[in-house]
Amino acid sequence: MNLESTISNLKYDANGLIPAIIVDAENKQVLMMAYMNAESLRMTFSTGKTHFWSRSRGEYWMKGQTSGHIQEVKAVYVDCDADTLLIEVIQHGAACHEGYRSCFYRKIEPDGEIKIIAEKIFDPSAVYGKNQPTSEQKSDK
Amino acid sequence: MNLESTISNLKYDANGLIPAIIVDAENKQVLMMAYMNAESLRMTFSTGKTHFWSRSRGEYWMKGQTSGHIQEVKAVYVDCDADTLLIEVIQHGAACHEGYRSCFYRKIEPDGEIKIIAEKIFDPSAVYGKNQPTSEQKSDK
Repeated sequence: MNLESTISNLKYDANGLIPAIIVDAENKQVLMMAYMNAESLRMTFSTGKTHFWSRSRGEYWMKGQTSGHIQEVKAVYVDCDADTLLIEVIQHGAACHEGYRSCFYRKIEPDGEIKIIAEKIFDPSAVYGKNQPTSEQKSDK
Repeated sequence: MNLESTISNLKYDANGLIPAIIVDAENKQVLMMAYMNAESLRMTFSTGKTHFWSRSRGEYWMKGQTSGHIQEVKAVYVDCDADTLLIEVIQHGAACHEGYRSCFYRKIEPDGEIKIIAEKIFDPSAVYGKNQPTSEQKSDK
């Protein structure tokens, strides 16, 4: 089994995508989830930095290519169905384009209230300027 | 903001689904990922146990309904895009229908080798009998 056949044997959806859960290798915090296709997974393995496929823009993006908030890949796992990836990374800066370490900075309380449970660690306007990334870009481009 | 409007305001895909990453509340390990629709999220909040929508069978399923390996919900988070959920649970037994605590029991090495990195904690045939669940059912039905 080489890397190419392993990548080919994963189960992609009708659009050729597979969700990738990104976790902080140090404290195991879930940082974000985004979509890869086979080619972005190849790029992730070959460069050691996470690459994704943007569904909204129809293009590849490396996490951190604008912000510098790259993710160094430490380990890649696949689930029992082979249709979801879990990737442990060293996160530089923050994963979320809103300025939070993790994209999951909001809790839904049982009464429906949405509560922010984390602190911003950077100012998005200082990092991205006026060209705010779209939500799917996370902190990129 | 009440729970119904919070659930309605989440971003579901074209099939009305939202991915839910399930994490062990105690050690933060990612256990599995499965899909919810608005109704299964309502059921999750109202019962305090995770409920999902099976894409393959077109029906609701409560995690653990056959195996007893239920997930008690401790906290629900939503990401910046409002299109992915992160749910912390107390996992009874194991999350994976293959007998592992987590569905992510296989590591993809840089050379493409797939290595099992966890120990089985139950025998699936003893829990499910001959009616093995399909992969999407995780450890259920």
